[in-house]
Amino acid sequence: MVLERKLVMDANDAYCPVRATLALLGQKWVPHIVHELMNGKLRFNELAVGVGGCNSRTLRDRLKNLEELEVVSRTIIAVMPPWVEYELTPKGRQLGEALVRLEQWGESYMHEPCI
Amino acid sequence: MVLERKLVMDANDAYCPVRATLALLGQKWVPHIVHELMNGKLRFNELAVGVGGCNSRTLRDRLKNLEELEVVSRTIIAVMPPWVEYELTPKGRQLGEALVRLEQWGESYMHEPCI
Repeated sequence: MVLERKLVMDANDAYCPVRATLALLGQKWVPHIVHELMNGKLRFNELAVGVGGCNSRTLRDRLKNLEELEVVSRTIIAVMPPWVEYELTPKGRQLGEALVRLEQWGESYMHEPCI
Repeated sequence: MVLERKLVMDANDAYCPVRATLALLGQKWVPHIVHELMNGKLRFNELAVGVGGCNSRTLRDRLKNLEELEVVSRTIIAVMPPWVEYELTPKGRQLGEALVRLEQWGESYMHEPCI
């Protein structure tokens, strides 16, 4: 299951694309992953460092989901040793651009540390 | 703790307002709550119905965090019996407006059910 059913279905138990989007962003680390990939393609380890603090298994799961949703593409570079690169698809890039508005909001309003 | 430390601190262990924003949105139900409150003030039970599927305790915790972050305001209406209303602050309303871009992305790209 890519997204959790109760986060995605509306009051009439119908699939809602807006709720699906809000559910996707409500997955821990997903906004961070999209944000990091806005700078271009990254190898798994580079992405892990950029995202920071997410364990490898969770990161791998999230990337798999984002691949299934066609937000991220995964390419195997067939050299020796081979490596894997992750990149936003055009759809993923548009999601990242929508996130920028939120990042601007953060720049304006989240300067007071809240941890 | 309102936001999780590892989601909020950057590679140099400094507080980052953009990561804080991404962490806030990455809390399950938070995007849904802000989305519901964009239509105006709501009582707790109305909000619970609108958000759909979130248990009361989690919803109460999320609202408390959003109050601490000054995204949501909470007003007690002193009639008999008294009730509580939740409303976006101006800061919260701007967050909701930034979310609209993401909802538009969902309208365009998330029509294929992915659950």
